[in-house]
Amino acid sequence: MLLNDEQARLEGARDGDAVSLDRLFREARTYSAWLDRPVAEERLRWIYDLMKYGPTSANSSPARIVFLRTREAKERLLPALAPGNVEQTRGAPVTAIVAYDTRFYDQLPRLFPYVDARSWFADNPAFAETTAFRNSSLQGAYLILAARAVGLDAGPMSGFDNAQVDREFFPDGHFKSNFLVNLGYGDRTRLHERSPRLAFEEAVRVL
Amino acid sequence: MLLNDEQARLEGARDGDAVSLDRLFREARTYSAWLDRPVAEERLRWIYDLMKYGPTSANSSPARIVFLRTREAKERLLPALAPGNVEQTRGAPVTAIVAYDTRFYDQLPRLFPYVDARSWFADNPAFAETTAFRNSSLQGAYLILAARAVGLDAGPMSGFDNAQVDREFFPDGHFKSNFLVNLGYGDRTRLHERSPRLAFEEAVRVL
Repeated sequence: MLLNDEQARLEGARDGDAVSLDRLFREARTYSAWLDRPVAEERLRWIYDLMKYGPTSANSSPARIVFLRTREAKERLLPALAPGNVEQTRGAPVTAIVAYDTRFYDQLPRLFPYVDARSWFADNPAFAETTAFRNSSLQGAYLILAARAVGLDAGPMSGFDNAQVDREFFPDGHFKSNFLVNLGYGDRTRLHERSPRLAFEEAVRVL
Repeated sequence: MLLNDEQARLEGARDGDAVSLDRLFREARTYSAWLDRPVAEERLRWIYDLMKYGPTSANSSPARIVFLRTREAKERLLPALAPGNVEQTRGAPVTAIVAYDTRFYDQLPRLFPYVDARSWFADNPAFAETTAFRNSSLQGAYLILAARAVGLDAGPMSGFDNAQVDREFFPDGHFKSNFLVNLGYGDRTRLHERSPRLAFEEAVRVL
C-alpha cells in the first residue's frame, strides 16, 4: 500500500492531462533531500512545454533556464552556494538556474508583433531590468509548478552569490541569474513539519 | 455541445481535487474582455487557500493581496492605469493588487521559527527589497495559476503607475504594489490568436 502510494507519487501526472491540487499546492513541499533516482532529460522538456505558456508582460518571456544534470556541471555551481545549500544541491539529480536575458526585448518583434514593444524597453534600462526580474520570477514559479505537474519535486533556493554564478555560467553578461531550483524525487522521510502560512485575513483585503 | 463545453470551462475545477494541464497552462489565455458574470467572494478564498502553499524564500510569504470587487474600489484604481488597461479593468469582476509587505521579515519568527531569519533582512534593506519583490512575484504567479485552478480566468498587468497605486491604497508606505491581475470569466470570442513562445532550444540549455 505504501509502496503503491509512493509509486503513484513518483509518477505524478507524467503522461496525464490533469494534476491534483494536493500535488500542485496543498501537499507539495520544498525538498532538500533526494531519492537516488535520475530525472530523464525528456521530463525537462515536459516542464518547459508547460511553463512556456505562463503569462508574462507583453509575452516577453525573459526567463532562460540552464538545467545542470552532470556532476561536472553541478561542481561549477557549488562554490557559489550558501553553505547550507551545498549538500542538497549536490544530492539533487538536476539543478535549474532560472536566469533572464537582459536583452529579452530583442525577441519582442517576434513574440509580441502587434506593437513596437521593443522600444518600451530598449532605451529604458531600469524598466527593462524590473520587467526581466519580475517576469523571470513569474516564470520560475511556473517552472516549480510545472515540475510538480510532471511528477517531480522542487527545492527552490536564493541563497547563493548571483554575481559568482553569472561569471561562471554567463560570462558575456547577456544573461543574469535570478534563483535556483533543485529538481528530483524528494525524500519524504527527511521532511520536517510544514511551516505555517498567513491566514486569509492577515494577507488579503477585499474592497 | 458548445454550451456544455463553455459551462464546463466556467466551472473549472471549482470543487475538484484536480485541474487539467490544458486549463492551467496549455489552453489558458490572458483575457482582456469579460463575461457579465460575478465572482463569488468564496472563490477568492479558494484562490488564497491554494496560493499560500507555494514556496517562498524562508517561507517569507511577503505578498499581500487586495481584491477590488466593488465599483467604488475599482474607480480608485483606474486613474493609475495605462490607458490601454482601463477598459479591461473596469470590465473585470475582480482586480487583484499583488503587493508586498516591506516589513515581511517581522513575520519570520512565526513563519520560519527554526533560525533567526528576521535578522537576515531587518538590517539589509536592499536584500529585503529584492527578496520581497522576487517572492511576491512568485506568489503572484501562484495566484494566477490558483485562479485558473478554481475555474477563473486571469489578465495580469504591469502597465500602471506603481507609486500612484501605493499612495491611493497603501498611504502609510508599509506595502508596495508589484503587479495587477484582473479576474473573472473571460470572453473567449474576443481572444486573438495565441502569441508564439520561444522553442526549448532557444530558452533552455542542458549541461
